[in-house]
Amino acid sequence: MLYFEDFQPGQTFITETHALDAAQIKKFAREFDPQPAHTDEEAAKSTFFGGLAASGWHTASITMRLLLQGGPQIAGGLIGAGNDINWPRPTRPGDVLQVVCEILTTTPSKSRNDIGIVNMRSETRNQRGEPVQIMLSKLVVPRKPA
Amino acid sequence: MLYFEDFQPGQTFITETHALDAAQIKKFAREFDPQPAHTDEEAAKSTFFGGLAASGWHTASITMRLLLQGGPQIAGGLIGAGNDINWPRPTRPGDVLQVVCEILTTTPSKSRNDIGIVNMRSETRNQRGEPVQIMLSKLVVPRKPA
Repeated sequence: MLYFEDFQPGQTFITETHALDAAQIKKFAREFDPQPAHTDEEAAKSTFFGGLAASGWHTASITMRLLLQGGPQIAGGLIGAGNDINWPRPTRPGDVLQVVCEILTTTPSKSRNDIGIVNMRSETRNQRGEPVQIMLSKLVVPRKPA
Repeated sequence: MLYFEDFQPGQTFITETHALDAAQIKKFAREFDPQPAHTDEEAAKSTFFGGLAASGWHTASITMRLLLQGGPQIAGGLIGAGNDINWPRPTRPGDVLQVVCEILTTTPSKSRNDIGIVNMRSETRNQRGEPVQIMLSKLVVPRKPA
């Protein structure tokens, strides 16, 4: 388990992989993002995406799961105080996703002496290595007990 | 259906509501964010959250659904090019969520004459009106056909 003191800029983590299929895409979308691009192969063809694509929030949720499977294993859990997230290209049925993380900065909290803030960049890539999601996260990380 | 030309700074939208319970929180978390704070009432007590709380990605996904139910109904669908998202307080079992959106800015695309970018702030609030998620979204919105 990692504490604030264990992090330094430049560290990288590579997660396990997740194989996505059309059934998963449509199941998530029916519950949380029921737009034609995410729920129906035929209707998706005439959308912005030009074919079935995962909801960005589905890609984000899979990324969260992958971060627990090979991302930094932080004491107290992976707690995000804020995230800047974008999806440079669609996530498609058949994509195999993997997350590559890099630690950018580490900053002790000014108001609390038991935590620090770790800024991490996470790139979720498909099987061709192309980024489908880029996320900058501000993680709340406990300091090592004295 | 709204086009780029229909948006202006200061417009607001208020969505329907969603009632969250412990079963939904644990179901989402088991699939996407299996950490004790989100999967187990007892174990959650000794975490940062001090009790069961929804995964932030669950709150984000519910917010997406609500945006389709009372947020801006955009021609071509609700397509986010980027989002800055944070969770100022936990989402709890029993919370009734509602999203209040405000249009901040509208900018024609420099590279494409058929779309524009609309910046929108969405606050997801619980039944006490307290924000549990604040999101700034960059929406891709089609221009009105000539």
